[in-house]
Amino acid sequence: MTTLYGYFRSSAAYRVRIALNLKGLDYDQAPVNLVKGEQRGEANLARHPQGMVPTLVTDNGVQLTQSLAICEYLDEKHPEPPLLPADAAGRARVRALAQVVACEIHPLNNLRVLKYLVRELEVDEDAKLAWYRHWIIEGFDALETLLKRELGTGDFCHGDTPTLADICLVPQVFNAERFECDLSAYPTLRRIVDHCNALEAFQKAAPGEQPDAV
Amino acid sequence: MTTLYGYFRSSAAYRVRIALNLKGLDYDQAPVNLVKGEQRGEANLARHPQGMVPTLVTDNGVQLTQSLAICEYLDEKHPEPPLLPADAAGRARVRALAQVVACEIHPLNNLRVLKYLVRELEVDEDAKLAWYRHWIIEGFDALETLLKRELGTGDFCHGDTPTLADICLVPQVFNAERFECDLSAYPTLRRIVDHCNALEAFQKAAPGEQPDAV
Repeated sequence: MTTLYGYFRSSAAYRVRIALNLKGLDYDQAPVNLVKGEQRGEANLARHPQGMVPTLVTDNGVQLTQSLAICEYLDEKHPEPPLLPADAAGRARVRALAQVVACEIHPLNNLRVLKYLVRELEVDEDAKLAWYRHWIIEGFDALETLLKRELGTGDFCHGDTPTLADICLVPQVFNAERFECDLSAYPTLRRIVDHCNALEAFQKAAPGEQPDAV
Repeated sequence: MTTLYGYFRSSAAYRVRIALNLKGLDYDQAPVNLVKGEQRGEANLARHPQGMVPTLVTDNGVQLTQSLAICEYLDEKHPEPPLLPADAAGRARVRALAQVVACEIHPLNNLRVLKYLVRELEVDEDAKLAWYRHWIIEGFDALETLLKRELGTGDFCHGDTPTLADICLVPQVFNAERFECDLSAYPTLRRIVDHCNALEAFQKAAPGEQPDAV
């Protein structure tokens, strides 16, 4: 059986759950409690030397880290339904949209980064929230512009089926709402996320639906 | 002609230069001066709404952003020599190694982030350097462990030819050295980077070799 080592609130694990669900794959979940620090424990470090989640162990024992690499692996091994369009330019567009989230927003608002701000830089709660929202706004401003102006956008980020871009967008919007970011300036993002969340694959991947949710 | 809108010191642009050189593709360079703020100018925002580099405009007018998405596009359109291995597990490994740099190290040490630390959080020079080195060390510790223990590692990060992982590693090590990080704990990274930098494709992509280098 495929096993996902994740955490209900980790947006990287959330991405992998969506991808597994879209592919219709069965998987066990093995929670790694990030608040209790289990990611830095011996068992998780053996799987993931960065001390992070997710790790996906496939039914034939392949051990995979980094959510985008995992999603691309799933897409290569289980091509239907595809998570990337068929043409190279479309694939580049989807990957770029995914990377706005995965390389420009999420890394700055990770738990370990927020902890560093508080513990090492002695940033207060208001400044931490301002930091969080600043990187959300920068990234979402760009995503809204791209998604509004580019012809590739459909019901979803690219065309009328969910892709890797939606897989990244939905957990990031979930996080933004958890931190009470004002999203009224992003009607296109909102429309696409609502479209995604109407699908069972996205609903079942939501943090509140996971076995370790508190 | 393919045009790369970049900046000599941008490590994301540096990645794309390496990929273009490995593929043997000709390209023009159109510098966007990040220190002068040209990335936030109208011309660059039209190309890249995030106000970043690089953007690659191909000879048939396709406009691409996000360095990893650009490299994958080049690899799909110009398959030889490949930047990813042939097997799905190998491809996932290479992408994951690349993403340790592109999703966990580099986003935290970007110019815009360092500026935010200084301007908004009033962090002093020492604390800024400590921040920079902290994320390098976390990421390089993990990379050294992965590259040392995994059988896939060869002369390069994966096997004996350069891949997307090396394309990300070399600019990150260049940056680390520029910020005088102590790299003595990373002999495997050092060995691989030396191997890469013996190749003309990497040498020609180095920041000091670019037309806008100062």
